[in-house]
Amino acid sequence: MTTYFSEINPVAFEGKDSLNPLAFKWYDKNRVVLGKSMAEHLRFAACYWHSFCWNGSDPFGGDSFLRPWQLMADPMAGAKAKADAAFEFFAKLGAPYYCFHDRDVAPEGSTPRESVNFFHEMVDVLGDKQVETGMKLLWGTANLFSHRRFMSGASTNPSPEIFGLAALQVREAMDATLKLGGENYVLWGGREGYETLLNTRMGQELDQMGRFLNMVVEYKHKIGFKGTILIEPKPREPTKHQYDFDTATVYGFLSRYGLEKEIKVNIEANHATLSGHSFEHEVATALDLGVFGSIDMNRGDMQCGWDTDQFPNNVAESALVLYLILKGGGFTTGGLNFDSKVRRQSIDPADLFHGHVGGMDVSARALLVAEKMINDDRLGQHVDARYAGWATPAGQEILTGQLSLGQLADQVLNRNQDTLPVSGRQEYLENLVNSYL
Amino acid sequence: MTTYFSEINPVAFEGKDSLNPLAFKWYDKNRVVLGKSMAEHLRFAACYWHSFCWNGSDPFGGDSFLRPWQLMADPMAGAKAKADAAFEFFAKLGAPYYCFHDRDVAPEGSTPRESVNFFHEMVDVLGDKQVETGMKLLWGTANLFSHRRFMSGASTNPSPEIFGLAALQVREAMDATLKLGGENYVLWGGREGYETLLNTRMGQELDQMGRFLNMVVEYKHKIGFKGTILIEPKPREPTKHQYDFDTATVYGFLSRYGLEKEIKVNIEANHATLSGHSFEHEVATALDLGVFGSIDMNRGDMQCGWDTDQFPNNVAESALVLYLILKGGGFTTGGLNFDSKVRRQSIDPADLFHGHVGGMDVSARALLVAEKMINDDRLGQHVDARYAGWATPAGQEILTGQLSLGQLADQVLNRNQDTLPVSGRQEYLENLVNSYL
Amino acid sequence: MTTYFSEINPVAFEGKDSLNPLAFKWYDKNRVVLGKSMAEHLRFAACYWHSFCWNGSDPFGGDSFLRPWQLMADPMAGAKAKADAAFEFFAKLGAPYYCFHDRDVAPEGSTPRESVNFFHEMVDVLGDKQVETGMKLLWGTANLFSHRRFMSGASTNPSPEIFGLAALQVREAMDATLKLGGENYVLWGGREGYETLLNTRMGQELDQMGRFLNMVVEYKHKIGFKGTILIEPKPREPTKHQYDFDTATVYGFLSRYGLEKEIKVNIEANHATLSGHSFEHEVATALDLGVFGSIDMNRGDMQCGWDTDQFPNNVAESALVLYLILKGGGFTTGGLNFDSKVRRQSIDPADLFHGHVGGMDVSARALLVAEKMINDDRLGQHVDARYAGWATPAGQEILTGQLSLGQLADQVLNRNQDTLPVSGRQEYLENLVNSYL
Amino acid sequence: MTTYFSEINPVAFEGKDSLNPLAFKWYDKNRVVLGKSMAEHLRFAACYWHSFCWNGSDPFGGDSFLRPWQLMADPMAGAKAKADAAFEFFAKLGAPYYCFHDRDVAPEGSTPRESVNFFHEMVDVLGDKQVETGMKLLWGTANLFSHRRFMSGASTNPSPEIFGLAALQVREAMDATLKLGGENYVLWGGREGYETLLNTRMGQELDQMGRFLNMVVEYKHKIGFKGTILIEPKPREPTKHQYDFDTATVYGFLSRYGLEKEIKVNIEANHATLSGHSFEHEVATALDLGVFGSIDMNRGDMQCGWDTDQFPNNVAESALVLYLILKGGGFTTGGLNFDSKVRRQSIDPADLFHGHVGGMDVSARALLVAEKMINDDRLGQHVDARYAGWATPAGQEILTGQLSLGQLADQVLNRNQDTLPVSGRQEYLENLVNSYL
Repeated sequence: MTTYFSEINPVAFEGKDSLNPLAFKWYDKNRVVLGKSMAEHLRFAACYWHSFCWNGSDPFGGDSFLRPWQLMADPMAGAKAKADAAFEFFAKLGAPYYCFHDRDVAPEGSTPRESVNFFHEMVDVLGDKQVETGMKLLWGTANLFSHRRFMSGASTNPSPEIFGLAALQVREAMDATLKLGGENYVLWGGREGYETLLNTRMGQELDQMGRFLNMVVEYKHKIGFKGTILIEPKPREPTKHQYDFDTATVYGFLSRYGLEKEIKVNIEANHATLSGHSFEHEVATALDLGVFGSIDMNRGDMQCGWDTDQFPNNVAESALVLYLILKGGGFTTGGLNFDSKVRRQSIDPADLFHGHVGGMDVSARALLVAEKMINDDRLGQHVDARYAGWATPAGQEILTGQLSLGQLADQVLNRNQDTLPVSGRQEYLENLVNSYL
Repeated sequence: MTTYFSEINPVAFEGKDSLNPLAFKWYDKNRVVLGKSMAEHLRFAACYWHSFCWNGSDPFGGDSFLRPWQLMADPMAGAKAKADAAFEFFAKLGAPYYCFHDRDVAPEGSTPRESVNFFHEMVDVLGDKQVETGMKLLWGTANLFSHRRFMSGASTNPSPEIFGLAALQVREAMDATLKLGGENYVLWGGREGYETLLNTRMGQELDQMGRFLNMVVEYKHKIGFKGTILIEPKPREPTKHQYDFDTATVYGFLSRYGLEKEIKVNIEANHATLSGHSFEHEVATALDLGVFGSIDMNRGDMQCGWDTDQFPNNVAESALVLYLILKGGGFTTGGLNFDSKVRRQSIDPADLFHGHVGGMDVSARALLVAEKMINDDRLGQHVDARYAGWATPAGQEILTGQLSLGQLADQVLNRNQDTLPVSGRQEYLENLVNSYL
Repeated sequence: MTTYFSEINPVAFEGKDSLNPLAFKWYDKNRVVLGKSMAEHLRFAACYWHSFCWNGSDPFGGDSFLRPWQLMADPMAGAKAKADAAFEFFAKLGAPYYCFHDRDVAPEGSTPRESVNFFHEMVDVLGDKQVETGMKLLWGTANLFSHRRFMSGASTNPSPEIFGLAALQVREAMDATLKLGGENYVLWGGREGYETLLNTRMGQELDQMGRFLNMVVEYKHKIGFKGTILIEPKPREPTKHQYDFDTATVYGFLSRYGLEKEIKVNIEANHATLSGHSFEHEVATALDLGVFGSIDMNRGDMQCGWDTDQFPNNVAESALVLYLILKGGGFTTGGLNFDSKVRRQSIDPADLFHGHVGGMDVSARALLVAEKMINDDRLGQHVDARYAGWATPAGQEILTGQLSLGQLADQVLNRNQDTLPVSGRQEYLENLVNSYL
Repeated sequence: MTTYFSEINPVAFEGKDSLNPLAFKWYDKNRVVLGKSMAEHLRFAACYWHSFCWNGSDPFGGDSFLRPWQLMADPMAGAKAKADAAFEFFAKLGAPYYCFHDRDVAPEGSTPRESVNFFHEMVDVLGDKQVETGMKLLWGTANLFSHRRFMSGASTNPSPEIFGLAALQVREAMDATLKLGGENYVLWGGREGYETLLNTRMGQELDQMGRFLNMVVEYKHKIGFKGTILIEPKPREPTKHQYDFDTATVYGFLSRYGLEKEIKVNIEANHATLSGHSFEHEVATALDLGVFGSIDMNRGDMQCGWDTDQFPNNVAESALVLYLILKGGGFTTGGLNFDSKVRRQSIDPADLFHGHVGGMDVSARALLVAEKMINDDRLGQHVDARYAGWATPAGQEILTGQLSLGQLADQVLNRNQDTLPVSGRQEYLENLVNSYL
């Protein structure tokens, strides 16, 4: 039988000198790095939507891919054919995990109940596929942004009825995630924001979103879901301005609604750069604020002001991110998902493999760089030395609150002596990082 | 005696048909708008630094202004000449308030103690000038970013000794603000951030900043300062990345360190746009999060990626900001400061007046537009109607937490009915706003 | 019979105090401004594509408009129903012109010939509609970017066969434009650029595009089309990088291929800002380089990095653009097109009217401001005075090439005297502009 | 005698396993790559201004470096001490070239003649230093942007007298470049642009600049300077908008004033990215338009909207640029200059070495990658195959102008057949590039 990827063999590790473009040069899943296998460290996931649902359209052009399942007249038949292709791909690629939105795997029905029924039927299909292939679910999520009913928001909609329709979808997606053994549940609020403040009561909408997320957390506990609830920050697109702008904003929001210990973030590289930060910054922020969960490893194009969702190809940047994650203890329930899409012109089935194989190899290579950075530890020691003053009694006295502003000011005035600054040594440190590549 | 502005007369209100470029066309300080005078609403302040300390230099060129006090050999004589010019300007302009950094008004000494002494001497000069002219102090602040000792941060410096030197400056600046009757105290962390994460322990630095701000708040209460402590968010420049990125980030930070009821924000238009938001967004966010304090009314240039600090010239944008502030109750201790600078090529003394007169007129005109928007109330009514569903029992049941996710999902599934979306009417609303101009 | 806009009356001028949102407050087509009527000055056009072809989808969501003609099974029946709605709209709006792409008005067929036949049939329908309504065609164009065959470029495609298919479409669209009395023919190269230089031979592609445009110009002369050929610059989106980046780039390209006297530019406000310029800059550049043709009056959102194509709502910015155009002699064959789209949430038929009525009123109001600026002429006189030195013999001697570098340098060295700079007076000039609003 | 860099030894090549941070790991100047030594390929230059003139100040802070020569009271003594330090640095670094502005090496005098005299004296000092150290001059240039007299432009100034003062400086700088054996002469128009169009007659200013550059070219030929005249594009900063926006804009300008065969471009990576392009794009554009001259290898920070001028640290990006340059024939008179500056916090003398050593190593490593790309040639072959259709008779018939639009359209219509698109294979190609790293 001919399948969509019948010309592609399972991707194998062949080492860095292989000239086979569809082999791994760096990702050797069993190779041990800092005490764990590469597979255990990286926890790779491939996603359903960009690879199997997107048809290559962009705001100025239509379908370029012509995937057969997208052209089928019966939506449920299409959903099943899509699942066949997706799991064939997942299994041949060899990433242990996959991710999905409810509407990726099953079509919207003509009524809420029909949508639920379609979804239930497809969740059973996915369950069977997982058993057949050994694939695991990194996270599930509900698509609360594509349908026109959500055009003005899901939980932040001016209509409580639409809030209700969103609640139904999330309940079902959480149930499905639990049933399929998913390790996290994600919320991305693509329409939770505004197009214009002229028609928006932002404070009210934030309260609605706060209530919605509290309902989600309560439901998680009620059904005994042990995974992590994750919010995926993004500053804008599709809306002009989204409430989950970046990690720091999400942290403030979670604090305001009492959720900072219940919900973590799923950070996407491209969303980080759209918000005016680096991927590294967003990961560091999440780690420092105690809300780091998982990552979407897709880069943006810094010359383009929208989400290009390209596969990662920069080893140095990826290494710094993995270095931070490893120093922070590594992933727990989270993983490294490719929310990436091949370019609109990459219309061959093989292109989907090129994208993922390249992204996995970049990540694996970055892991090896991060391993060197940790083992060598010159970077860590430099930073320790730089802040050594804060470990002294004088530093601790300040940090632990034993000195008032007035007391400290008096001390300084009495000492009456300036302190010379010390070089930040940025060029030296950048060279040091390059030496690990 | 010839003074720096001796060719300029006090600026008077002459009405909108005046052809005198140095008269107010719109700012009639006694005109009553919504029950208060324009002066009471707008609480205008002019600043010391850009107008009297900056010499016109930029990263590619030197002094273009040649202000006489900047060329004097003796720094304290220069400081006094500067104060003469500044108060001549403030008084002729007719804004009721001014603002300063410690180092704007007095020079850095060769030791901490000398710096303090210089500052004390100049604070007395300022006090006398206030009495002479009737000027009031909107806020004081300490410059913790220009001197090389702060190049790696003030409260976030790797050295606790530099933290101490910052504490001394802030203590003195707070004392001076209290003494001069200042209505707020501001902190802008131009160096509280990082150039590279390679040499930065961000979590540690955030803890240092959290401790510092707690010390500031404790000191405020100790000395009986009744004004508001304000943080001024800015995403970057001078540093690559600043911790006080925007209002939402500051809110999260304040929550984390228990300060969200003690500290508010001073929002600058140009900082808002550099952070990927609109000025309006930042003001709305601060109001909704309960941390709105004061504004710096200087616009950026959206084609330039740095802080251009231009005088406001867009009535429509300013009107939307003032509309939000008025709807939120108006300024309390805060005001409308011009942290604006004339262009480097605007080298004549008169140019300083053109900038401020234009900015005050734009703001006054915007206030009149906001008055129309409030009196007419079609905008407000539209928004009320849009969210009316949330005021119904069904909406309230959700918002007040009486329904679990499962219960709500079941309700929706049982009703089994979709909800049609409603037009957002953005074009209609934008036209409506234009009709008030 | 109920039509799509049957609830909307023809839009009338009612003056600035009208509270009717669907009346013109400022656009009084017969009002004489600087010797011509508003209609003659502004030459408004409405476009087919965004208003009648776009269904409200964006990269994260589907159809929100549900226009009836977009849901019809038979594409030619849909095209005719669309034409009915479009001309009903055009006629009720009262803009004298409209614009279209070939694929806006007629569907793609299953073969090139069928596409041509469909198009011919619809061109006849358009011709009849023009006679019925009095509408005129400002410009026609061919869509060489939506179909997957053009995904890697039309004239810049690696395949000469696709170049040929593009040539066929352009020939047909030029013929149609001539037949329908169109006053210009536009080319927008949405796919003429690259996604990655790794697979691109840029020099070859520029030569292809140069050849293509020469073929277009030769054809124009052959068929006796008297209108203007226009290129519409845009820096990116859909492609990562487009060859027609901005006006200066297009000018250099035209010079290189001998076309700078044959082709002019159609400048879109949103494209200007995406390229790092202001709309005003692009218009000034085109006027100064002698290639100014026409404008698309749709603004972007400076906080969003993609083409939002919003209706103009800033009178001051529009006034500066119209001031430049009027000073440059006004439009000849060009006009003021709204390549604008209502927001995805503006799903009511009336919203299309709100967008256009607001945009026309902003433009008309801006025209009145430009009239004041020209009549008053303080701005013009200021600029004349600033450059007066270049009109002196000493200035002319330099400009006309009578002095070599060495001679001029010797003169300066002999005079041995510095020249003091003069204030640029930007704040004064900005206030002056505001005084006309 | 203690010198500024007395603690630093000459930098030697020690190979990639060296742990010495002040040794080259990759730059082995005599290593032969594609038939030439690394030194001959890369033609490294270090610059005077950022390393020896800049004092670490930024818009928010003052001198952080405290270089001894910057603190000397006598400007000519300072200039000589600066030259001592600069040539000590150049010689120890081992880059064969250096570059300077006139005002970098000699102070501004109190009259034009005194400035010239100071400059002549220092040019003699530089000549002696070149002989002593073997250093060569890659290019000279005149600083027409720092002094307040140029605040409104040099050649584009509203005053012809200031144009004259600029002409004097350029004449002197060209004479000095010739005398010192410089291989190129550069013009960067930091003030050739505008702050506001309200006070600017752009067309007039472009004509002034066109005349100025023609004078420069005529003078070059008159004095027998055999080097290349280069323009350095930059879109903005210090001005809001500069006329030499990017390479394509400069090309159009040169064409307009008949200079496209006389002047080439010096492309800076950071200027490329500020203009919305990649460094690679700007180099490719210059090569394709026949105006490629030289490069400034300093990167920007894509999260910052101003010129950060950091040392390059991305091997992959640099390799693509060098690959293009090598494919285009390599440098002729141009070279690879570091117009880079250490960070403001990098206050130690050694930091200047870290920056340059790292930048040279990144470039050398990139050269080795480019060598692999050329030797392996899979990338080149892929591109050749992609455009093969244009080498066929059918393709050539189009490109060479043998077919009119009508003839080609008729051919296509008669064939009546669509052409299927072909995958762009971007992911495959990106992986291929990564395989060379």
